[in-house]
Amino acid sequence: MNSNPISIDNLEALYSNYTNRQFYAFYPEDLRAYDTSFNTNALAKFQNTLNSDFHQMDPSASLLGEEVSPFLNVGLGINYNAYSNDILIQNSQNAFLDWSAFSVNKRFEVLCDIFNSLGTPQVFFDLAYATMHTTGQSFMMSFQASGPHALDRGLEVLAVAYHELNKFPSSVNWEKDFGKFSLKLFKNYKPVSVGVGLVIGCSTFPSWNSFPSIIANLITGNTVIVKPHPKAILPLAIIVDIIQNVLDKHGLNKNIIQLAVDTVANPITKILCEDPAVKLIDYTGGNSFASYLYTLKNKIVFTEQAGVNSVLVDSSDNLDKSIQNLIFSASLYSGQMCTAPQNIYVSKDGIKTPDGVIGFDDFCDKLKIAAEAMSQNPKAGPATFGAIQNDNTLRNIELKTNDFNEQILLSNSINNEEFTDAKTQSLTIVKTTSKEKKNFQNEIFGPFLIVIKTDSFEESLALAKESAAQFGAITCLAYCVDNIKMQQIEMEMNSVFTPVSFNFQGAAFVNQHAAFSDFHVTGGNPAGNATFTDSNFVNRRYFWVGNRYYTETF
Amino acid sequence: MNSNPISIDNLEALYSNYTNRQFYAFYPEDLRAYDTSFNTNALAKFQNTLNSDFHQMDPSASLLGEEVSPFLNVGLGINYNAYSNDILIQNSQNAFLDWSAFSVNKRFEVLCDIFNSLGTPQVFFDLAYATMHTTGQSFMMSFQASGPHALDRGLEVLAVAYHELNKFPSSVNWEKDFGKFSLKLFKNYKPVSVGVGLVIGCSTFPSWNSFPSIIANLITGNTVIVKPHPKAILPLAIIVDIIQNVLDKHGLNKNIIQLAVDTVANPITKILCEDPAVKLIDYTGGNSFASYLYTLKNKIVFTEQAGVNSVLVDSSDNLDKSIQNLIFSASLYSGQMCTAPQNIYVSKDGIKTPDGVIGFDDFCDKLKIAAEAMSQNPKAGPATFGAIQNDNTLRNIELKTNDFNEQILLSNSINNEEFTDAKTQSLTIVKTTSKEKKNFQNEIFGPFLIVIKTDSFEESLALAKESAAQFGAITCLAYCVDNIKMQQIEMEMNSVFTPVSFNFQGAAFVNQHAAFSDFHVTGGNPAGNATFTDSNFVNRRYFWVGNRYYTETF
Repeated sequence: MNSNPISIDNLEALYSNYTNRQFYAFYPEDLRAYDTSFNTNALAKFQNTLNSDFHQMDPSASLLGEEVSPFLNVGLGINYNAYSNDILIQNSQNAFLDWSAFSVNKRFEVLCDIFNSLGTPQVFFDLAYATMHTTGQSFMMSFQASGPHALDRGLEVLAVAYHELNKFPSSVNWEKDFGKFSLKLFKNYKPVSVGVGLVIGCSTFPSWNSFPSIIANLITGNTVIVKPHPKAILPLAIIVDIIQNVLDKHGLNKNIIQLAVDTVANPITKILCEDPAVKLIDYTGGNSFASYLYTLKNKIVFTEQAGVNSVLVDSSDNLDKSIQNLIFSASLYSGQMCTAPQNIYVSKDGIKTPDGVIGFDDFCDKLKIAAEAMSQNPKAGPATFGAIQNDNTLRNIELKTNDFNEQILLSNSINNEEFTDAKTQSLTIVKTTSKEKKNFQNEIFGPFLIVIKTDSFEESLALAKESAAQFGAITCLAYCVDNIKMQQIEMEMNSVFTPVSFNFQGAAFVNQHAAFSDFHVTGGNPAGNATFTDSNFVNRRYFWVGNRYYTETF
Repeated sequence: MNSNPISIDNLEALYSNYTNRQFYAFYPEDLRAYDTSFNTNALAKFQNTLNSDFHQMDPSASLLGEEVSPFLNVGLGINYNAYSNDILIQNSQNAFLDWSAFSVNKRFEVLCDIFNSLGTPQVFFDLAYATMHTTGQSFMMSFQASGPHALDRGLEVLAVAYHELNKFPSSVNWEKDFGKFSLKLFKNYKPVSVGVGLVIGCSTFPSWNSFPSIIANLITGNTVIVKPHPKAILPLAIIVDIIQNVLDKHGLNKNIIQLAVDTVANPITKILCEDPAVKLIDYTGGNSFASYLYTLKNKIVFTEQAGVNSVLVDSSDNLDKSIQNLIFSASLYSGQMCTAPQNIYVSKDGIKTPDGVIGFDDFCDKLKIAAEAMSQNPKAGPATFGAIQNDNTLRNIELKTNDFNEQILLSNSINNEEFTDAKTQSLTIVKTTSKEKKNFQNEIFGPFLIVIKTDSFEESLALAKESAAQFGAITCLAYCVDNIKMQQIEMEMNSVFTPVSFNFQGAAFVNQHAAFSDFHVTGGNPAGNATFTDSNFVNRRYFWVGNRYYTETF
């Protein structure tokens, strides 16, 4: 663990790490960097939390909670204080008056303290169990994604904000020479905050996807209402709780950030979205809700939606390693990542390799073998797949499988010795042809791969491009060792705002976007309109206002 | 005239001028800095342009043109090649393929050349006559606004773009240490352009308001269709023509920028807006068209709309000078500036001055005297007021005047000895009370001031704030020498994203926003969603895309 706390003095250097795009991580992702006692404590704490009230009961709130552990397959029994929309909005508006009036510097001080309170080994392990037993992510992924990776993503936002909010002097003495006299004005420049920000969490990456938005809103002087998915509240409840404690320690209004709790049966998100006081909405989730958000007036909306991620397999120096890599990426967290590959395009002419051309059917066979090896591996299998967050995913995959005439591999449950009741599912692999567009040009969430036989490399690329433009894409994985084709792939996929990962093997996975180096979502195609982290992610949350004072004319 | 041309080597320094916010101008605004021969040439050129075809007739185009000089009160008789929407879009899409593929550096080279071709004394005088005889701006304003000021605003955009587009390295060798081995990836980062940009000009500031958008689109690799107001084509036709010549000189597709010409009776703007190829829309003009633009899907829209600009008169060290300043700002270009003051709030308790309290009615009398002196001044009158661009402005003011029971000053024509047929109108000043909100809470375009008697300073401020929040405001002028109240004004008006100019006298005018120092429009209230020039103005026109190449693992 990094022993130096985050302070305002670090932020300029952090911004250099952001712009130079080299590898950088403030918080180690390697479990071995952390004392195991934190893990032991965290597990005990988590077990104590089960079947109890997370918050001390507030008489003005109702207690709600309906999370279910995908590993234990039982309800967590944790209840949270749930407030009415009116109270949440009123609290947030009151807190905004205080928070937005603070100086930028003061906000950075508080935010640094928030990072130092959240970025501790104990919190990381607490978040790991909370994430694991709400999302179904494996323990390792839960630890990394909700702890160090989420915090590093947030730190990236803080660094960008530091640069952006300090771009201009807070005031200048401006002087214009008119020859015979000089006009003098005193001018000041202020980044003016916009109001209440609503951050809507998702059920699969509650902390990783929402934390950057929380930080972006707070540092720009806006208040935050965090509305987690009703099935993945705990990680965000822990984060909100710690931030509130820091605010309290600084003598600030705790309602600068609030947790909004609802249930699947009685959702409150739209009511919050439509409240005129809510000016900013950050959303991670499906397309239909995002489309609804785009129809709302006078809101600044940041989204990460669904996409159809493509794999282009044209040629490889080592096809077996390529296939292993691809299968791992599709299996990781059972394909429940927004970055997971789905559609694999292979020309009917097969794949060029050092061992000659591998035909389409041979490739499918190799995929099947690799997928089976992955899911049947007693240790790597359960650790890679984790568990299925939502029963709908299981049902949907069963349904979609039937849309395809040819199945390469049907899914099974994964044998998980530690959690025998875990809701698991191995990879389904189906095949089809480029003629059957309607079957593959939409997101099929979960562990599902479609191998599409095309007429040519050109058709493969054209379909991947079309699909990204029309339905969105966050990633594209390409196996290709032909320089001309690689350039073509990059140019065509980039033109629909989709980044390409070429020839990934070994420890390089298309799913993973590293803070300080990889942009997550470009914002240019229907997979979302925002990016972790470009300057727009921060700068669209406030407006510069400059005032001028006449001083004198000589 | 600055003798050093703009080159890539200047742009880092220009960006420092942008961030430091001190006075900076690359192009001198003072007519005396320019040899008078350019003026003589320009006038002769303008006269030759009258009743002729601006473009060499293209058989595939139709010839259109219906501009009328507000000074001469006759049609200019200039015809322009007008192409069908389909041709414009097709040309622009074809040009986009070339232009977007160029390196950022190459685009900066071309853009520098565009500035050096546009930023010449001859072009400035050519633009002056073109602007004067389409917009009705006085010769001086036409020269300054369309030439040096517009170019400086464009240069500011270029400087911001230089910083933003070069923020990241074009590629890095990224290495992540896993302890036993190291993962190496080659990564590149590209600002990917979005497509065809439509820039919709207005009739009052065709060049000043559209030029920054043109530059922002071009430098981010997007193509531009410039659609001027049918009554103010010439200034933009000159600009597009010169840019096309530069493109041609560089061997580039001239259709990277195109002029789209229509008539009031057969407008084509909506058809262009709705074309799926048009991804970016820059618009200056009224609210109803802007509201329409916000309903369009998959467009990135930048607007400067109308607003209601307020004046708060509480106290003054020198009320006469304050009034002179205010009257000048309201008279300048006959109030046809988006920054012109309209609503003057004065408490019934009067205005504190070194000579004692000046009552509401005395203030109105002083306003009237100053306004009459301004319009009747044989030299300053016509030079300040210029001419009325649109007959509707005259009709509307007549109509609105009747909404008010009490008129302080009725408008007259301005005696203009040089242009005896000029369409002119002096200031109308009416008075009302804070009870009559419906009469003053909307924009009344043109030379029209409303003095509103309020119950108190607090009511004055509350009304100005409410009006800015609901109807937008680009400026607020405040006369107040009480420190506590000044802070209140700044805080309250800034909270609705309205900048305040305090106690302006002499050569400081609320209408004027200086490039490199003042933001023009904040983007936060209904007066517009974009700012000259924040980084969003550039960064929302492209998306960062990063590609990753697996190199090796050790």
